[in-house]
Amino acid sequence: MRRHYFLEEYCIIAAERRKRPSNFRRERGTETSDPRTCPFCPGNEEMTPPAVAVYTDEGVGSDGDERVRNWWARSFLNLYPAVTAEPLPPTKEWVADRARGFHEVIIESPDHDGDPSKFSRQELERLVTVYRDRYACRIADPGVKFVSIFKNWGRVAGASLSHTHSQLVALPIVPPALLREMEAIRESPRCPYCSLAEREAASDRLIFENDQFVLIAPFVSEVPYETWILPKEHASSLEGLDPRGLEELAEALGEALRRQDRLLSGPAYNYSIRQLPHPRYHLNLRIHPAMSALAGFEKNTGIFINSVPPEVAARELREV
Amino acid sequence: MRRHYFLEEYCIIAAERRKRPSNFRRERGTETSDPRTCPFCPGNEEMTPPAVAVYTDEGVGSDGDERVRNWWARSFLNLYPAVTAEPLPPTKEWVADRARGFHEVIIESPDHDGDPSKFSRQELERLVTVYRDRYACRIADPGVKFVSIFKNWGRVAGASLSHTHSQLVALPIVPPALLREMEAIRESPRCPYCSLAEREAASDRLIFENDQFVLIAPFVSEVPYETWILPKEHASSLEGLDPRGLEELAEALGEALRRQDRLLSGPAYNYSIRQLPHPRYHLNLRIHPAMSALAGFEKNTGIFINSVPPEVAARELREV
Repeated sequence: MRRHYFLEEYCIIAAERRKRPSNFRRERGTETSDPRTCPFCPGNEEMTPPAVAVYTDEGVGSDGDERVRNWWARSFLNLYPAVTAEPLPPTKEWVADRARGFHEVIIESPDHDGDPSKFSRQELERLVTVYRDRYACRIADPGVKFVSIFKNWGRVAGASLSHTHSQLVALPIVPPALLREMEAIRESPRCPYCSLAEREAASDRLIFENDQFVLIAPFVSEVPYETWILPKEHASSLEGLDPRGLEELAEALGEALRRQDRLLSGPAYNYSIRQLPHPRYHLNLRIHPAMSALAGFEKNTGIFINSVPPEVAARELREV
Repeated sequence: MRRHYFLEEYCIIAAERRKRPSNFRRERGTETSDPRTCPFCPGNEEMTPPAVAVYTDEGVGSDGDERVRNWWARSFLNLYPAVTAEPLPPTKEWVADRARGFHEVIIESPDHDGDPSKFSRQELERLVTVYRDRYACRIADPGVKFVSIFKNWGRVAGASLSHTHSQLVALPIVPPALLREMEAIRESPRCPYCSLAEREAASDRLIFENDQFVLIAPFVSEVPYETWILPKEHASSLEGLDPRGLEELAEALGEALRRQDRLLSGPAYNYSIRQLPHPRYHLNLRIHPAMSALAGFEKNTGIFINSVPPEVAARELREV
């Protein structure tokens, strides 16, 4: 049982459990998609709400000025939003504030069969630049307290459409999990993420590093082959990175996705970016392969049981 | 966005999201099991560790005294444990206490094709009685601070073998999630679970009730068709129930599983029992159908997005 670096959270690393037998056949969700009917493909822009930003070689525009279809990324409000900008009709007893905010879909590539683990260096750099741009836009809204950027890849990881895309949800609150982090960070003389990035880089949990970033299998991995990307120098959000920082983040993300793809044969996964508009927060990106179900024990206790020690995961991801 | 009854936790109810399209084909995990090789079937007891308790019409025994094979439930230590009673070799830096404890597998029925949603009243009563017995046994251990009893049904809910079984994990700590609950409970003049059981029973989220229990779709449902079973009269754990209470709990559990099975066509699900050896805690059993993946947003924020309002879920579960 391992305690989180600086929070009152635990996970159980139980390598023995990896050997347990199963009498279920594993099936892969198959994909039934056709670019002609894919709402995320170039040519089908009218199947989605109007873009809030269209990224092209000529700069950032909107649907209006790009009747050409040469965009490389495009963001629009989700047709099926978790949060909305418009006030909703008031409801009865016990209802907390309606979820006011923004829910964007970010199409990462015009290529219907695009796969981030196969993205070129340029595509990855464009991707993190789009993340920074969308983050900066939404966090500037005075009603927004937190911006979640995340990606669900593959059906078992929660994707409903296969054309590669990320999502952004801008919330009117800081999620309690982040508040708890901030509380622990405030109590610590030195940034605990700065410390852990330094210590993990010198440990057997390091997978890759460049000048500005480390890619690690965290000591407290909740799921098999979980990885984190952390800036070595303190930065609170993507806005705190310089152009070279964005390039190196793109490189680290590419390393993470390619290594995971090769080792685990194209797994479904989620990744998400944790950042806050507070100088003491420390940007981090977490990748969770969707290899194990969240089962009754986790739901009962909030404690994860992980059958692959991060030291083993890191070695395999380094060597692949 | 809804706030938890008494904790700083939120979920987002977004009914619109239910309508979103998918281009993935859904596949059901198929089962490839054979009673002749199933380690949980009568006749194959030597394929498992020795039983810690064997439940028969003649009372509770052990493997030794039951060469007859007429057991109706059997519990043994998990061959692939998350926690173990033996000390493990010490390890290096940052490692929290080793997970000392007990990890049991509880076979709920000798029938290889048994399905709890089809259990008879007698089978359900036996099941909750076994839960109480195993709980009482483990919580009496001075090193044990919390006992988690849970069931994973179906591969996507985390089951690795299909023969119906539950698990028990006895931990040397109270999980932080439960500590937070206890903190809020201590600050409240009246037990917040007693209040919510009363209020929900009078709301459109009630699904079923008998003299001692309510079955509700909680106001803060994290996943579609989540249900909770709560005693109306305060009880901290299964040990606080009288024989009539156990019968009524069995009835409520049967109602929950049968209604869910019919409405959702035999879904995979988890259920788990929350209880603490503290007089102010309030026993509750939570059932989570495994219908949606834990996706990037949930991992990023700890906030769940649920596309089925509990008021809709309760109506459908009442009417089925």
